[in-house]
Amino acid sequence: MQLLEERILRDGKVYPGNVLKVSGFLNHLIDEHLLDEIGKEISARFCEQNVTKIMTIEASGIAIACAAAHYMHTPVLFAKKSKTANVSADCYSADVVSYTHNNTSTVIVDKEFLLPEDRVLIVDDFLANGAAIRGLRSLIEQAGATLVGCAIAIEKGFQKGGEELRAEGVRIESLAIVESMTDDSLTFRHQN
Amino acid sequence: MQLLEERILRDGKVYPGNVLKVSGFLNHLIDEHLLDEIGKEISARFCEQNVTKIMTIEASGIAIACAAAHYMHTPVLFAKKSKTANVSADCYSADVVSYTHNNTSTVIVDKEFLLPEDRVLIVDDFLANGAAIRGLRSLIEQAGATLVGCAIAIEKGFQKGGEELRAEGVRIESLAIVESMTDDSLTFRHQN
Repeated sequence: MQLLEERILRDGKVYPGNVLKVSGFLNHLIDEHLLDEIGKEISARFCEQNVTKIMTIEASGIAIACAAAHYMHTPVLFAKKSKTANVSADCYSADVVSYTHNNTSTVIVDKEFLLPEDRVLIVDDFLANGAAIRGLRSLIEQAGATLVGCAIAIEKGFQKGGEELRAEGVRIESLAIVESMTDDSLTFRHQN
Repeated sequence: MQLLEERILRDGKVYPGNVLKVSGFLNHLIDEHLLDEIGKEISARFCEQNVTKIMTIEASGIAIACAAAHYMHTPVLFAKKSKTANVSADCYSADVVSYTHNNTSTVIVDKEFLLPEDRVLIVDDFLANGAAIRGLRSLIEQAGATLVGCAIAIEKGFQKGGEELRAEGVRIESLAIVESMTDDSLTFRHQN
């Protein structure tokens, strides 16, 4: 997606440890026009898949999930980060290892809101090692629902998550795939 | 806002301790159509205020803030809950006492994204004691920006936050104000 790639080149900041900071337009301050275009693009790619729910994890996935939902006319279900180790019996739960924050968190969804007949599209801002998507996929599997695919704003193509998930048969649509990045250059994977 | 009041009556659940659970349509599973109408209504109430930024706190305010931003064509800035007690010098920070969760958290925004010339509309899902709004207002004041007002989906009118903030001169627009609630009845304040 050209608009997103251009914005990453203009306003993204690269930090040591393969950190790409996009907090100026995507996940702290959010550019409304860009967000809307991202939602439109995700909808265009998945509108024929009879998606019944869009799923994400709080917090930074919520804006993008809602932008896509606006065009797909589907509800958004966001998994919550559990504040306690004890998960209620009313919830599905999964562990998500964050390499960025070097910790493990438990994400939960209320069983009432994820049903066997649901066709779920996962939406998130970043895909790197794929831990968040694996956590959400586990919740979907626990509910007996169907994972239709994943729509990601920015994939770090030099990390393994996207490659591994695609090899497992998951449809991943990333609007921008960063192929390589250093302090002074950033290249995108060419996509048709 | 009739659509929201009707939905609260139909699907809201009251729990002991004045807890009103709206997780089936507003802050866990989100009804896209309702969200869109809320965004439209907030825009209608504040569209003449030259708002330059909509501010909220992660996580459950983000969806509503983005829905309003869609119609107001303004960026959204969401304050983050700090994971550490040490706040970077690049951030404004404020403490928010949560009566629901019985804890205090520190919320932060990057100084770069909140400027003296900003005219800020605070958006959130709930207003009860007003602690979240006071935290956000503190961030806005630290930046020397202007607080235009607050747009809230659901105000608990029987708690003090709304009354006190209005007495302090803050414009508060709540789309639904719950006047009283018990296990088997819930009434709204009449608004013109």
